[in-house]
Amino acid sequence: MNPRVLEIPGSVIRRIASMKRRGTIDLGLGEPSFKPNMTHFRAAMEYVRERGVRYTENAGDPELREAIARCYNYRNLHAAANVCVTTGSQEAMYVTLKTLLDPAKDELLVVEPAFPSYVKMAKLEGIPVRTVAMVEEEDFAFDAELIAAAIGPRTRAIVICSPSNPTGRVISRAQAAGLVRALENRTGEPIWLIHDEVYREQCFVEDAAELAAVYDRTIVTNSLSKSNALTGLRIGWILGPAEFVAEATKAHAWLTSCADTFAQMVALSIFGTAGGLREHTAWYRERQACVTSALRASGLRFLDVEGSFYAAVRLPDGADSERSAIDMLETKDVLAIPGSAFGDSFEGWLRLSWVTDLATIRTGVARIAEYCATAPNGSRPTT
Amino acid sequence: MNPRVLEIPGSVIRRIASMKRRGTIDLGLGEPSFKPNMTHFRAAMEYVRERGVRYTENAGDPELREAIARCYNYRNLHAAANVCVTTGSQEAMYVTLKTLLDPAKDELLVVEPAFPSYVKMAKLEGIPVRTVAMVEEEDFAFDAELIAAAIGPRTRAIVICSPSNPTGRVISRAQAAGLVRALENRTGEPIWLIHDEVYREQCFVEDAAELAAVYDRTIVTNSLSKSNALTGLRIGWILGPAEFVAEATKAHAWLTSCADTFAQMVALSIFGTAGGLREHTAWYRERQACVTSALRASGLRFLDVEGSFYAAVRLPDGADSERSAIDMLETKDVLAIPGSAFGDSFEGWLRLSWVTDLATIRTGVARIAEYCATAPNGSRPTT
Repeated sequence: MNPRVLEIPGSVIRRIASMKRRGTIDLGLGEPSFKPNMTHFRAAMEYVRERGVRYTENAGDPELREAIARCYNYRNLHAAANVCVTTGSQEAMYVTLKTLLDPAKDELLVVEPAFPSYVKMAKLEGIPVRTVAMVEEEDFAFDAELIAAAIGPRTRAIVICSPSNPTGRVISRAQAAGLVRALENRTGEPIWLIHDEVYREQCFVEDAAELAAVYDRTIVTNSLSKSNALTGLRIGWILGPAEFVAEATKAHAWLTSCADTFAQMVALSIFGTAGGLREHTAWYRERQACVTSALRASGLRFLDVEGSFYAAVRLPDGADSERSAIDMLETKDVLAIPGSAFGDSFEGWLRLSWVTDLATIRTGVARIAEYCATAPNGSRPTT
Repeated sequence: MNPRVLEIPGSVIRRIASMKRRGTIDLGLGEPSFKPNMTHFRAAMEYVRERGVRYTENAGDPELREAIARCYNYRNLHAAANVCVTTGSQEAMYVTLKTLLDPAKDELLVVEPAFPSYVKMAKLEGIPVRTVAMVEEEDFAFDAELIAAAIGPRTRAIVICSPSNPTGRVISRAQAAGLVRALENRTGEPIWLIHDEVYREQCFVEDAAELAAVYDRTIVTNSLSKSNALTGLRIGWILGPAEFVAEATKAHAWLTSCADTFAQMVALSIFGTAGGLREHTAWYRERQACVTSALRASGLRFLDVEGSFYAAVRLPDGADSERSAIDMLETKDVLAIPGSAFGDSFEGWLRLSWVTDLATIRTGVARIAEYCATAPNGSRPTT
């Protein structure tokens, strides 16, 4: 068998999440709890009734691709040729990394704390990875100077998830401009930015940079999973320069052929509806306000939730995050994800997903505060 | 960018298919023309209404996986742990090749004529490929001795598509037994069989081998695309030993996370319906009889359609199949796929897809016969 597959470790996030019991206060997985809008499913049903579910073009239905490009309206990315529809943003990122980087000579730079999939996908493809950690003392704010300073001679792409999973931080326009200046002032081969925008519709600050709007060599990956509670529908896309999208589509064609036509028609209905991506904004805003006020009242140290649907909470000094998460699950029956899953820089933190009902959020935060106040010693690392 | 992606050539099949005009007699792509059964879609809608479309486990919904394993009931492959649900059989094959073979030391053996994706996927992964061609004089019948003789020192897996795209041949039980004997009598590292069974429900002979029923190191890939006219739904699966499926699921998880939950619920309805996979058998049988009788009456040389939904027709001696296909499209307005797309051994042949209405089948075959009778010189290769 392929040693690269054999060496893939199991997912810490899934392992911890699987330990929950009936009744556990679940602030673990990033899956919104509201129901999707059935209007869009009915539109897709109508399509199937009339036309069946035949293959679309490999890159996806042309009307959907154009609707996606027009919706975001990023500089020079206005056409169907700028979009390849994929099986969720997971395939979008996988195909992007596979297409963009030559494992024999290129290297990926991942801005951490980060969702673990970027590093694992790169490893599966044999692509060398370098990481750069944002600074805890700065509340993990995106820092263009730090990112630029971490670029190595083989770095050809930088992955940035903003709004960030797990920190909830958003890259500001000023920091984005600084990063772009640094990239443009470099000599040698150009560097691509990969902007994972999957939490784009859960942004609660005004000053949020869209990298594709300011840097031409940007590839955006996104999906409907979060904005429309369609995690299981597996509709994502790559949005980028047409020449790149054409190559990525070749890789995508051999991996999965095309995305599900039914799901693409659900997506077409959403993009064809004014405000379709923002149907659930009020739901998210209510919860963001709830978790913020619960955290403020708790006395816990936490990061301001600028975006995404996570909140980051600091454990007592010296606590081991994985041990604490398990201990907290056992003693307080609250599930949160240990920071260590997102890189060494996030050790000592917990990630809370707050896309659930308000009572669960409040109870969860209160129990975490109780846990941190009373049981920190039990969570200390042992040797 | 990744040179392996840049080097992927475009698809000959898609290029020829894209040349068709309005009104062209289309015997090109392998996509059934009947409509899917909406009952299964309504069941999936009901599920979404009640439960949303959340992620399933990476390997797929456990109930669906168990239903798939039980349906085929292959030796030792009876449990959910034997199944990983994928984005169509395309991802099933891709993940299987990626997981099973170490590019640094293993080699894949492809039995030709074959659908071009196996070779292209392997190239994309850097896996060396060897091919073994079945013999034209034997009407491309699967020949265990030839296959066994082609095994090289690095061969670790053999891909067999039976019923075959493009030949319509089916591997017999005797040939399968011969192949298994040859594999079991070898010394050295064991060799896996990969059985692409996507045309399993379009089998028109009794003597059809199921490789997983006779050889434990068999991995089956399959989907609902053909049996239930759900090409665009992208529901396929890997069926194999649990230890292999566990590793393949890791690769699958990083590629696409999980298959579409809505589509999985359509699949669960089909597998939960007695005879669900065979709902359209009469439709296929009627067309297989029609194309067979049209070909008999035409005077063309053709291969008996034992299975799949293709018929293979011999061009006049010396004809170049790609040039002929284009010439025939221009002069007779009939689209068929040139044999060269399926390997050198199939040069001089055309593949006809007959999953369309009966009048189109008859007209198409008649025009191909006319073309071959009157215009063979125009299709001769030039130097």
